[in-house]
Amino acid sequence: MPDPVRPWKLSREGPGRYLDGRPFGNTSNVFECLFSSAASYTDSSDDETSPRDKQQKNSKEIEIAEQEMPALMALRKRAQGEKPLAGAKVVGCTHITAQTAVLMETLSALGAQCRWAACNIYSTQNEVAAALAEGGFSVFAWKGESEDDFWWCIDRCVNVEGWQPNMILDDGGDLTHWIYKKYPNMFKKIKGIVEESVTGVHRLYQLSKAGKLCVPAMNVNDSVTKQKFDNLYCCRESILDGLKRTTDVMFGGKQVVVCGYGEVSRKGCCAALKAMGSIVYVTEIDPICALQACMDGFRLVKLNEVIRQVDIVITCTGNKNVVVRENLDRMKNGCIVCNMGHSNTEIDVASLRTPELTWERVRSQVDHVIWPDGKRIVLLAEGRLLNLSCSTVPTFVLSITATTQALALIELYNAPEGRYKQDVYLLPKKMDEYVASLHLPTFDAHLTELSDEQAKYLGLNKNGPFKPNYYR
Amino acid sequence: MPDPVRPWKLSREGPGRYLDGRPFGNTSNVFECLFSSAASYTDSSDDETSPRDKQQKNSKEIEIAEQEMPALMALRKRAQGEKPLAGAKVVGCTHITAQTAVLMETLSALGAQCRWAACNIYSTQNEVAAALAEGGFSVFAWKGESEDDFWWCIDRCVNVEGWQPNMILDDGGDLTHWIYKKYPNMFKKIKGIVEESVTGVHRLYQLSKAGKLCVPAMNVNDSVTKQKFDNLYCCRESILDGLKRTTDVMFGGKQVVVCGYGEVSRKGCCAALKAMGSIVYVTEIDPICALQACMDGFRLVKLNEVIRQVDIVITCTGNKNVVVRENLDRMKNGCIVCNMGHSNTEIDVASLRTPELTWERVRSQVDHVIWPDGKRIVLLAEGRLLNLSCSTVPTFVLSITATTQALALIELYNAPEGRYKQDVYLLPKKMDEYVASLHLPTFDAHLTELSDEQAKYLGLNKNGPFKPNYYR
Amino acid sequence: MPDPVRPWKLSREGPGRYLDGRPFGNTSNVFECLFSSAASYTDSSDDETSPRDKQQKNSKEIEIAEQEMPALMALRKRAQGEKPLAGAKVVGCTHITAQTAVLMETLSALGAQCRWAACNIYSTQNEVAAALAEGGFSVFAWKGESEDDFWWCIDRCVNVEGWQPNMILDDGGDLTHWIYKKYPNMFKKIKGIVEESVTGVHRLYQLSKAGKLCVPAMNVNDSVTKQKFDNLYCCRESILDGLKRTTDVMFGGKQVVVCGYGEVSRKGCCAALKAMGSIVYVTEIDPICALQACMDGFRLVKLNEVIRQVDIVITCTGNKNVVVRENLDRMKNGCIVCNMGHSNTEIDVASLRTPELTWERVRSQVDHVIWPDGKRIVLLAEGRLLNLSCSTVPTFVLSITATTQALALIELYNAPEGRYKQDVYLLPKKMDEYVASLHLPTFDAHLTELSDEQAKYLGLNKNGPFKPNYYR
Amino acid sequence: MPDPVRPWKLSREGPGRYLDGRPFGNTSNVFECLFSSAASYTDSSDDETSPRDKQQKNSKEIEIAEQEMPALMALRKRAQGEKPLAGAKVVGCTHITAQTAVLMETLSALGAQCRWAACNIYSTQNEVAAALAEGGFSVFAWKGESEDDFWWCIDRCVNVEGWQPNMILDDGGDLTHWIYKKYPNMFKKIKGIVEESVTGVHRLYQLSKAGKLCVPAMNVNDSVTKQKFDNLYCCRESILDGLKRTTDVMFGGKQVVVCGYGEVSRKGCCAALKAMGSIVYVTEIDPICALQACMDGFRLVKLNEVIRQVDIVITCTGNKNVVVRENLDRMKNGCIVCNMGHSNTEIDVASLRTPELTWERVRSQVDHVIWPDGKRIVLLAEGRLLNLSCSTVPTFVLSITATTQALALIELYNAPEGRYKQDVYLLPKKMDEYVASLHLPTFDAHLTELSDEQAKYLGLNKNGPFKPNYYR
Repeated sequence: MPDPVRPWKLSREGPGRYLDGRPFGNTSNVFECLFSSAASYTDSSDDETSPRDKQQKNSKEIEIAEQEMPALMALRKRAQGEKPLAGAKVVGCTHITAQTAVLMETLSALGAQCRWAACNIYSTQNEVAAALAEGGFSVFAWKGESEDDFWWCIDRCVNVEGWQPNMILDDGGDLTHWIYKKYPNMFKKIKGIVEESVTGVHRLYQLSKAGKLCVPAMNVNDSVTKQKFDNLYCCRESILDGLKRTTDVMFGGKQVVVCGYGEVSRKGCCAALKAMGSIVYVTEIDPICALQACMDGFRLVKLNEVIRQVDIVITCTGNKNVVVRENLDRMKNGCIVCNMGHSNTEIDVASLRTPELTWERVRSQVDHVIWPDGKRIVLLAEGRLLNLSCSTVPTFVLSITATTQALALIELYNAPEGRYKQDVYLLPKKMDEYVASLHLPTFDAHLTELSDEQAKYLGLNKNGPFKPNYYR
Repeated sequence: MPDPVRPWKLSREGPGRYLDGRPFGNTSNVFECLFSSAASYTDSSDDETSPRDKQQKNSKEIEIAEQEMPALMALRKRAQGEKPLAGAKVVGCTHITAQTAVLMETLSALGAQCRWAACNIYSTQNEVAAALAEGGFSVFAWKGESEDDFWWCIDRCVNVEGWQPNMILDDGGDLTHWIYKKYPNMFKKIKGIVEESVTGVHRLYQLSKAGKLCVPAMNVNDSVTKQKFDNLYCCRESILDGLKRTTDVMFGGKQVVVCGYGEVSRKGCCAALKAMGSIVYVTEIDPICALQACMDGFRLVKLNEVIRQVDIVITCTGNKNVVVRENLDRMKNGCIVCNMGHSNTEIDVASLRTPELTWERVRSQVDHVIWPDGKRIVLLAEGRLLNLSCSTVPTFVLSITATTQALALIELYNAPEGRYKQDVYLLPKKMDEYVASLHLPTFDAHLTELSDEQAKYLGLNKNGPFKPNYYR
Repeated sequence: MPDPVRPWKLSREGPGRYLDGRPFGNTSNVFECLFSSAASYTDSSDDETSPRDKQQKNSKEIEIAEQEMPALMALRKRAQGEKPLAGAKVVGCTHITAQTAVLMETLSALGAQCRWAACNIYSTQNEVAAALAEGGFSVFAWKGESEDDFWWCIDRCVNVEGWQPNMILDDGGDLTHWIYKKYPNMFKKIKGIVEESVTGVHRLYQLSKAGKLCVPAMNVNDSVTKQKFDNLYCCRESILDGLKRTTDVMFGGKQVVVCGYGEVSRKGCCAALKAMGSIVYVTEIDPICALQACMDGFRLVKLNEVIRQVDIVITCTGNKNVVVRENLDRMKNGCIVCNMGHSNTEIDVASLRTPELTWERVRSQVDHVIWPDGKRIVLLAEGRLLNLSCSTVPTFVLSITATTQALALIELYNAPEGRYKQDVYLLPKKMDEYVASLHLPTFDAHLTELSDEQAKYLGLNKNGPFKPNYYR
Repeated sequence: MPDPVRPWKLSREGPGRYLDGRPFGNTSNVFECLFSSAASYTDSSDDETSPRDKQQKNSKEIEIAEQEMPALMALRKRAQGEKPLAGAKVVGCTHITAQTAVLMETLSALGAQCRWAACNIYSTQNEVAAALAEGGFSVFAWKGESEDDFWWCIDRCVNVEGWQPNMILDDGGDLTHWIYKKYPNMFKKIKGIVEESVTGVHRLYQLSKAGKLCVPAMNVNDSVTKQKFDNLYCCRESILDGLKRTTDVMFGGKQVVVCGYGEVSRKGCCAALKAMGSIVYVTEIDPICALQACMDGFRLVKLNEVIRQVDIVITCTGNKNVVVRENLDRMKNGCIVCNMGHSNTEIDVASLRTPELTWERVRSQVDHVIWPDGKRIVLLAEGRLLNLSCSTVPTFVLSITATTQALALIELYNAPEGRYKQDVYLLPKKMDEYVASLHLPTFDAHLTELSDEQAKYLGLNKNGPFKPNYYR
């Protein structure tokens, strides 16, 4: 335990207790510490706000988030009679934000008990964590954890006397990994894992392949609704937002090369930039995606064909070393380089950490890398995901993910013995459709209902599912 | 046999024979008949052309089509050494067009023998049929067949002495159905069926489900490349073209309701019309598709909410009775109604054939249906598919389908015993990718190759397949 | 019955002679000739229709056009009490189409007498001319006039005993030119000229500059509403339509170079093609337009930089010899070349009429020009305007022009002495706004009215004009 | 050293007094104050930077700005031989930013002496002001001036012994107004005024109308290049950026009403939001603009028709009280209201300052106005211009304005006696074209040159101007 004095630790070691007793004592210390390091990256005006105001503001942020997460609120309402998660003890490991707070409060309203850690050392909104703690939730997280802190927090979620989780809600697989490694026996009581991230899902499939997955797992990441929203509708806006907030670049007339033409790239990046007047080139390895790029009006090139002329380079491949030092050497002065893909390996950033190159941080998340001849490359988020690092995720998108997570927990928790084996599952189509339908009222959208005759003609149940599971 | 004097029948009953003897006698009769009824619907200037010129022009049309079907030409070239279809006897039932001619000539170059009928009583380009016949192919088809003609032609393809097919290439399933019904023993020698249409594939799955499918079948319709092209890239252009050619309507400012928001509708119809300045409303039954419509910027409504105000109604659902008499009664004067979906059942056209309504044909494929108060509805193609009836399909799109068909034939014909069972298969991903790659040179598109390191990182073979089979 | 001696009547009553003495025979011949060569280019199904049906159909076409020209119908209604053109004798020279018929009938309803000739030897819809003649109008025009016919018809409009025009409605300036040349004294009674075309307006400005314009003239061509519609909204649709009808080309992925980036090009061609998935390059001589092309996302190139790689070349400059033989020599096989500009001089078509090149007409308006090595260029409309030759103009666009013409006639005819001198004028902004407002109901569009306070703040009259005259 | 008494120097050299006697203390105070309240709105990470670093960083910002203002750098280069502004004494009143610094340094390189004040009390980048002062320029400005400060600074620019301006560069007309009011005799030596803003230009036209304009003035605001960039290309990006930075709203599926359909609105706001998946309604008073909105695919409504359902309200009219309390009362909870027009009068913000409504500042530039029933309206920038308040202006756009200003100064300063009278002029078209051409290299854009023959055909000089002055 490297650091004996950390805020939440302190508060947890003090007179109060989370789950049972509440409140848990000396928060003032905590808050002092928290607020000195404050400043969520989405809020540049914090400096004008006093700590007191911040806290008030924050429960308000949760309140505002509630308004934009209508589906969770609808779930809460429907749960007033019945408690589908009564008896559920959910241990979670996700980003700690106002939206997560709405999810946790919803799970609680559905009958569950929750203990939570952060899945990322930077992303915790401290005020939200504090507000949740005030509200009686056991949250172990703060912005700027060390790696040791990170694992310590996770451990605190599960290693607690008198409370044993029976459901896991994970984002990245770290929590699942920790339990596998430290407390494998705990799985005997666990009814299922709900996993949200690409990485976490990948790990689960590997476990399953190796015959080591010992409970059913629900792959939330690949649910259609989430996929479409995260990859397409969200990236379409965050590519513009991320570039603008970091560089103030004008998009009109800029030449851009986008590496990869999958869902993220297609409408997410390429279409948005094209709409703003950029000239977009695409690179691809898969001929089918390549042909789609052509038909959508993008020149398909090899990176080296255009590297000298482009103003912006964006990677969205999921591959590694897509942009390497040789490419970076040939870029023109002022070229912006960033990553919208699924990993931080796409740009070989390590290759830029050599003595002849000078790094200069010009803004948060923005580095100028300077060549001996004075040429500057503008590297965003050090090659990590632009949309997560330099942009915000609209609450509405998070609402879809959170609702899907809640439904996946309900499904796994209530499924009759034998419906799910020790394998990785996609959310049943019908529940995916249900998630979508809960979000339609936001748009004042009116769904058409099948007539009996039409349902019969199509061989469908009038209430869905309307598409086969594999349909995207 | 209701009609003793039909052109191809005549020629086939005369002195010559197709496959063996050639030529087949008294073509002059045939041509006279053909050319008096001539005029492909895509060519409004035929009246200026003499029959003689037409025939010349037509082999030229095949020649021109060859230039736009580079993938088939590439296949021919690669086949110069080896004949992957040597010994194959292919019986086909498709639209008879210049593009089909290029396919047939390619199959022939690959070593196959072909006998062909039309899958549609209207779509045959007589000059192409004639040119193919001149070139030695056994083609049984003409524009404007009766239903009896239709089945007679199909029968002539298979019911022939001394020649028995070992491969079926079908579009709609009628040929397959005929063989099942009349010559079931023929399947003993048949190595496989390649089916192109939704309907035909549906029939095959039903056979398979019922345990009655007795040879392997390849579902070409659902190959990714074909799907993307037919549904999206093609419809995007043909919705505009079909409406313009039939009605000369100006798109700017028009209010349009599109029923259904699947692939055809999404980018195909809605995006194209939006780009031209129309205001587009969408109806949907599936909440996932509905949410996508919302996010793409279309108001999601029930048909009745907007039926009084829209200028154009387009159906793309695959469902039946999507637009019924009640809706038609409420449309405003001059409203255009058409169908881009998968069946001719979407608009309840039968309900318009009542005594109080007057029908008036104002152009080919365009009817005015007139209410007693003088209100006119403009009904296109009597509710059949607009894109097939009133627009043209670019050769490039047909090239993708034809190449896929050719590869599917090669795959089934050469597959080692046991690779394919008596079931319906999708084209292996790798061959789908191959089809796409053969079309990239058209766009001067340059594919990126994986490095060894990247292939290893992704767990892929450097030459593909690059995506799982279910990937779209 | 405004005119006892009508051309159709005349010609039908016995053999006559053209002005220069050529006999034009009896009308039955004329009609036979007319209808056998009939077939408006917008109507591919004429061959199925008998002459009798055609004529019936045509008054129906006028009726249908009336429904899409709501502004003229509104003018007619308002004229029921008052006849603003009472006493006006309008001689016109325009395209003779169903839409012109609606205009003429409107002028007549407003009190005017009309005599009309065609401004183009090909564009007359014979059935419309016949229907107008039947309705009592003096129309001198048929499809396929010789140049002598053309001038004879014009002469017949003005050279008539007992009737002298006091207003001119011209499209191209030929009528005005004829009167200047043959009957200059006629101008003494003429109150004004309304001119619709670029060329005609140019001629008027030259006359004015030379001090030879002897009556006020209204430049209808440059009215804002007409400009926006003709140049932008109309071309946006007609570029796609014209290319599709002539070549069936697929737009997706095609490389296109557009010469010139004015109004026609900008949204008209470039934006439409971009929306359909083409990759568009632009050439420009004016740096301001060039910069706009850049910001809109088009690579600005010199023609020679891309001429080898493009699939389609479109000229929209108003300049001459923009595409010359040297460029044509370098194009790739199958390249499509067409003109959307203001003249037929943009493509140096004459340079293609050399012995080593073979011309082959493949469809109406489509020529293949074939190089000795077999390379084919697809030349549309022999370099004349694609949108006029190969596409249709929506009635709604023509409605705007026709309404503007009618209002310009009313304005000039009723203007108090001295308001207009012997000069060329633009339509007063307020009347331009009135034309626009008459077309809004078509879109169910609701205009906002200024409050008194707002009008005062802006220094405007509540009823307009809302913008200065130069505003576009 | 043009001016021994510079403000920064002054203030740093000891306590001073404002014009009206208020003391403004010693500079160290000033700097402390400046940097503690610092934080340019474009830079959210200032809190991590020490004052020392900030200043270093800032001359770097000027350096970076230089790279994106290639046209000014080109002017500097051309001025190496000749000094077109030698002897010019320019007094300026503009926003004080890195881009202005590049302009001032350019004017200086061209031979001019400069004294400068800020045209806005909030927009000064203090570090830039400091860097300019360090570099020897007389700059009187800081972020957060009071109104008295504001006029004091302006006065300090002109009221200085031994230095009298002969050129005015104004943005808003306040400087011009001050000289008119306080030092009218100064105009005797002034050769001209260059004015950049709508308001300032309006004032000049009023002066001219009243016969009180006593020197020539150049209206830079209405130069084509500036207009297109500021109104269209810039707003297209800043509407998205401004909304995103302040509210993180997701655009997809949002219903938006845009009041006014002029240049700003048209492509600036409406097209950008449409491209991001919003459903956009438009209100207009001018039927011509209204018809364009219809043709571009937007429903034209009165505000009240949609006010209950929209998620975002944007004003771009230039009018006053476009959104009034009655509208605000009817908006739904969470509705965002902002202004992109030319004044801060469009939204009647004053009407919201009533006791029953609660205002809550949730972020910088973002207020929640809360109704008694809990409904919240999200008001941005208190109704001031969103694009200036909540977004950044790309350097490239400012480069165009700054280059135009520099050329206007050169033109007025060097014009032969009599070319310009005491009136308001637009920049000659040719210079406008020159500004554009200086910016083309940024896009690697290649302009086509007219041949002699073409120039003759068009009646143009080969080097321009290519369009009449009124052309946009």
